[in-house]
Amino acid sequence: MSELASTPEPPYYAVIFTSRRASEHEGYGDMADRMVELAGEQAGFLGIESVRDGAMGITVSYWNSMEAIDGWRKHVEHREAQRRGRDAWYEEYNVRIARVEISRSFVRGDD
Amino acid sequence: MSELASTPEPPYYAVIFTSRRASEHEGYGDMADRMVELAGEQAGFLGIESVRDGAMGITVSYWNSMEAIDGWRKHVEHREAQRRGRDAWYEEYNVRIARVEISRSFVRGDD
Repeated sequence: MSELASTPEPPYYAVIFTSRRASEHEGYGDMADRMVELAGEQAGFLGIESVRDGAMGITVSYWNSMEAIDGWRKHVEHREAQRRGRDAWYEEYNVRIARVEISRSFVRGDD
Repeated sequence: MSELASTPEPPYYAVIFTSRRASEHEGYGDMADRMVELAGEQAGFLGIESVRDGAMGITVSYWNSMEAIDGWRKHVEHREAQRRGRDAWYEEYNVRIARVEISRSFVRGDD
């Protein structure tokens, strides 16, 4: 991922996932790529922005409702990734679910 | 920055700043460090999580109220950094302000 997400006017919802990876990360890259692909296929998905630098990563995904987030959280393949994350890949993480109320964008040359 | 933020129980607020940097970035690193330091001194600041990988960056700062966010947005030194960001450093960015409603954390060894 190296793109900003184009999202509609608020309100909508964001899942802010911040993590510090453990040294063990066999299979991590494939799983991360697969989760981005799979998230994009879910109902209510609006976009995703993700950056990792070594151990530390932030992924923010955007959704049109809390119900959509709940559906994604419970997706069977995603649950398996969550389990492997806790078993092996992550030293720690935070998940925060937030309602986006205001947004603004800047694109060079647009102003 | 290479740390996760410890934040209180929701509700609180998040500023999700996602950016793609232009090739010009003289002065950027110092400014970014200074903004993290300065944000931490503001009333209502709860924490910050930030990752950059090359051009793409995500910084999420946490605040106890919308008023605190508004105060930070209008801080004179921060406004100057915003101006320089638009003039030189950023190709594009999104700023989203969101109300955090749910959070959960995982720390290895805690479960």
